[in-house]
This record gives sequence, structure tokens and C-alpha cells, in this order.
Amino acid sequence: MRLNETGEAGLLKILHRYCPAEVIGDDAAWFTAPISHNLVITTDALVEGVHFSSSPLSPMGEKTMSAVDVGWRAVAVNYSDLAAMGAKPLGITVALGLPPQMPVEWVEQMYEGMAEILQTYGGVIWGGDVVRSDMPFISITAVGCIDQLIIKRSTAQVGDSIVITGYHGLSRAGLAILTDAQYDEITELVSAHRRPRPRLDVLPFLQELGIERIAGMDSSDGLADALWQICRASGVGAVLTPAIDLHPLLTRLFPQQAQAWCWYGGEDFELVLTLPPDAAQKLVQKLGHPAQIIGEIVAGEQVFLGERLLRPTGGFQHFATDSHGT
Amino acid sequence: MRLNETGEAGLLKILHRYCPAEVIGDDAAWFTAPISHNLVITTDALVEGVHFSSSPLSPMGEKTMSAVDVGWRAVAVNYSDLAAMGAKPLGITVALGLPPQMPVEWVEQMYEGMAEILQTYGGVIWGGDVVRSDMPFISITAVGCIDQLIIKRSTAQVGDSIVITGYHGLSRAGLAILTDAQYDEITELVSAHRRPRPRLDVLPFLQELGIERIAGMDSSDGLADALWQICRASGVGAVLTPAIDLHPLLTRLFPQQAQAWCWYGGEDFELVLTLPPDAAQKLVQKLGHPAQIIGEIVAGEQVFLGERLLRPTGGFQHFATDSHGT
Repeated sequence: MRLNETGEAGLLKILHRYCPAEVIGDDAAWFTAPISHNLVITTDALVEGVHFSSSPLSPMGEKTMSAVDVGWRAVAVNYSDLAAMGAKPLGITVALGLPPQMPVEWVEQMYEGMAEILQTYGGVIWGGDVVRSDMPFISITAVGCIDQLIIKRSTAQVGDSIVITGYHGLSRAGLAILTDAQYDEITELVSAHRRPRPRLDVLPFLQELGIERIAGMDSSDGLADALWQICRASGVGAVLTPAIDLHPLLTRLFPQQAQAWCWYGGEDFELVLTLPPDAAQKLVQKLGHPAQIIGEIVAGEQVFLGERLLRPTGGFQHFATDSHGT
Repeated sequence: MRLNETGEAGLLKILHRYCPAEVIGDDAAWFTAPISHNLVITTDALVEGVHFSSSPLSPMGEKTMSAVDVGWRAVAVNYSDLAAMGAKPLGITVALGLPPQMPVEWVEQMYEGMAEILQTYGGVIWGGDVVRSDMPFISITAVGCIDQLIIKRSTAQVGDSIVITGYHGLSRAGLAILTDAQYDEITELVSAHRRPRPRLDVLPFLQELGIERIAGMDSSDGLADALWQICRASGVGAVLTPAIDLHPLLTRLFPQQAQAWCWYGGEDFELVLTLPPDAAQKLVQKLGHPAQIIGEIVAGEQVFLGERLLRPTGGFQHFATDSHGT
């Protein structure tokens, strides 16, 4: 069955199965903010051919992700933003652009992926909008609540330790494996790319440790980018250890690229946090390996890897002219 | 300047001018829910070539709306959903899909339109996401708060009077004028199409009149559709007066189509409300002409216009096979 056979009403009936009954059937969904009433909101959009190529209509033909993965991932990027602010998910809205020839099954599978991640991390689907678009897209807005401490980029202080909550470069390595036939599929790297895990599990530890001051963001645009963003927003610099701990599979399979992908690969969705050294030590202990302290916030305005300046970007630029451009 | 010249960072710098300073620069925006903490959330997406054709890259060539209109309208459809629930706007997020060749000026103009409607009705831009897409799209999520009474579709009761807050068919007439060279541009009809006004102004009257029970929705998908939706959700029927008051310009310019456009034209963004007869009388008095009582909720499950059944739809179906389809 394709969308032009089920029609809009038919599709909505299917999608409503994924929403709590009480939010369906009105012009908007109603929800109650928790007592603290400090809320956080974020939006991220994925476009076919740019962010994924799983749909059966993909002009790229290549399928690095299933429809279930696309649904998971579309929520994950938003949930990572919530985690990066210290917020617990309450719910999401979904705007879908779909061509009339799209199989209904693809859309259902995508909702299965969304349902799966919501079940894992909490939050409900409050509804949204489905519109016709030749190019499939998914735009998700997530709302979360802050129980205690809001995490901002601008509050890093000289002397803070810099913590990363996990390995970097894995998502990029997963993509390489999926797009190059010479590699066997390696579950750990491939799922880092297909099913990134927002680090919402870090938040209860921050609360438990009674951490009172923290800065940070997620590493979705690359670890180097996150470090530069935090330093710029806080008016500080950073010195990082060149001895950053890389995933053994990354160094074994991609010895040439491992360092670059760690700093610039992007889409690892870990948290990059700066906090007083004591608190940082305790946090890393709580989180366990591979969470690690990778450096220190210093006076200045630049990020050094050992004695060398760390280039801010190497990542994906949405509107950049490509290297063949004029 | 085109987007591939300014790049993502350059564009974001421009767009941040439209956001309050305190919400910029983190992974998500932070806001405080009002004390009542009853919130409402809604999402609507507009796609180039389907919902608008104003961009200089439009394959349709036809320009029924300016970029400013597109920005206004993208917010208006969401604000109308808030009004339909009885909610006051707090803010919006914006997800934009844009091709690299898009002139930056077009995007700025669109943000001007959004800024204009936010200034009129309240709410701020909390940020969002900008991604590359060959087909331009705008997906907006709006959050509002309920001060008092939530308006749902499912609470209409037999004996209620049915109120509409304004004329219907004007947006459809405006579109006809814009797409048919035989008509002079008539400001009133054309702005009904280009700059629909969400009826947020109705809410203070509901509060002032101390209305305790109400049902309703907006008429964005057509007046007939709204009436059927309310009746289905509430398990009731309706009898409408054939003497519905039409806009004099509509009947003069489009005598053949006036009735059909009133019921099925869509996109008028008025409110369709059912409430006890006394309250309905008072509300219509407060709102003044052309707000009017158009009928009554009765036992049953169908909507009658006088003695004839009112067809539920005649409007736009997103994934419908067109009349030339197989």
C-alpha cells in the first residue's frame, strides 16, 4: 500500500496508534508541565538524501539505515540536545513530509523506531503534521523538563576539568563500514551510526553527585566543535591531552583516520562537560570507562591539543560549496 | 548572496537576530511554563509547491505569496491551532529545509513575516534547525498555555448553539483572485489568503464571559469539515441554517462558488465553537458582526444544512490520487 492509496486519513489512523489516546483528535496536544516548570525545547530535521537514504524511493539507492533506524535516529538527535541541557524528555511532535508513492509500511517502520527510543528513554508522541513533499523529511520537536541543574555552554570556568562521556569517532567509522564493501559489518560501530544513544543516563549521576556547577553540550557536530563552542561561549580556552583514549576497533580498523574521526567525525552524541576537578573525577568514576577526563579549561580563547592548536572544524557544513564548486 | 555563499554559520548569525538573546547558543532553548502549567503543543509544516510558491526557486514560477507572507502564514496556522485549544502563545521553534542556491534575503524576509505575527500575538522564536533540502520547507512547532478553559472537539452537547467567529470562503476567493488574471487584486480577500489571522483575540472574551463549557476547533480544513469533526468527536449531530451570512464581496464576485467556498474552501482559520445558547448569544454580541450563530447541536450523528445532509469534505486531501489518476 502506498500513501496515495491509504490517503491522509488512513495514514493518520495508523500513526495515531503510536500516540496516547488522550492527545489525539484535537487541533493541538495538551500536556502538564512538572511542578518545577523549567522546560527545554529543541528541533531537528532529517532530510532524505542528506541525513538518511533508507527510503525505498531514495534516489541514492544506497541504504545505510532501515526505516526503523531513521525513526530512532530522528528522536535520538533531539533527545541528545535535551540531555545536553540536563533535561528529561516529556514528549515530541513529528512533522513528516512524504511523497504520495511512499509505501505506508516504511512510515510505520519509522514510527516503530520512534516508539522504541521513546520506550527506552521516556516521553510520548504528541502528534504532529503529515504533508506531501517530493523529498521525504522528518522534523521532530522535543520538550523536556529540568529537575535540577540546567547545563549551558557559557558557564565553563578556568580550572574546570573536561569530561567526555564516551568514545568518539565510532559513528563515522560505522558509516565507513556501511558504505565501503571491503569491510565486514561490525555491530558495535554500525549501531553507533544507526542507533546513537542520547546520554540521558548521565543526568541522574549529576543529581546524585550533587554537582552544583557545570557547563557543556553534546558532541553531535564533532568533539572539536563542541570544545570550541564551549570555550567561545564561556570566554575561556582549553588544553587537551593528546593521549585521548580511542576505541580499540577504531584504531585497529582505521589507523590512518582514527584521530581525525575522533575529533571531527561527528554524530557521536556523547556529552562534553566541564566541571570542578573533584566533581569531574567522581563523575568519571560513576560513569565508568570509557568516560574520561580529556583536559582542562584554561585562561585564553583557544583549544590546544597538547602544544598544537586544535582546528575547530573538519565536519559537515550544510550550505558549503563543495570542493568541486566554483 | 546565496546560502552556499554565507554558509550555515553565516545564516544562523542572521537568524539569531530574531531570537531573544537568552535562548541562543545552547543545544536547546530554555523557558519557564506559567504557574498553571497546562500547556498545548502543535506542529504544522509548509512545503514549497504544495503550500506556497513564493520562493525565487519555485518550479511553479507563480508567486501567490511573498516570503514575508510565507513566514506570517507558517506561524498563523500553528497559532490558529493554539487559539482552537484556548491557549495563549509562548513561543515557537522553526525547522527550515533550504536549497544551497536560496537567496539569503528570501530567508530573512520570511523571518520578518514571522517576527511580525509574533509581535502581533505574542510569543518568541526559541530557535530551531536549518538543513539542506532541494525542496524548501518550513516546519513550525508552537507551544501555548491554557489560562482557564481548554477547548476540545469532544465536549459538544445537544442543545448547544454553534458559533463561527467570522466569514468563511474568503481565503479561497483570495487564491482565485491571485491565480486568475481576470480579477483585480482585492485587498480584503487577498489578505485573507496571504495573512490569515489566528483568532487568539477571541480567548479573552471567553474568559470575560465566564464561559464554563465549550467545544470547538478551527476551520482550517473547511467549515464543513470542522462541523463534522466536532459532531463525530462528541457523538452528536448538528442542524445548520441555510441563511449563513456570506461576505458581500464573495457573493458579488463569485456568485456561483460562494456557497461551496464557504463550506469547503478551507484555510479561513476562524473558530467554530459550540456552547450553551445564552453564552453563545453573549459571545456573538461581544465579538460583533460577522461572528454569528449558524445552528444547533442535536441528537444524532450527522450534519444537516436545513433539511439536506452537508457533505463532509470537498477540500484538499494530501495524498489523494488526483482526478486524472488511475
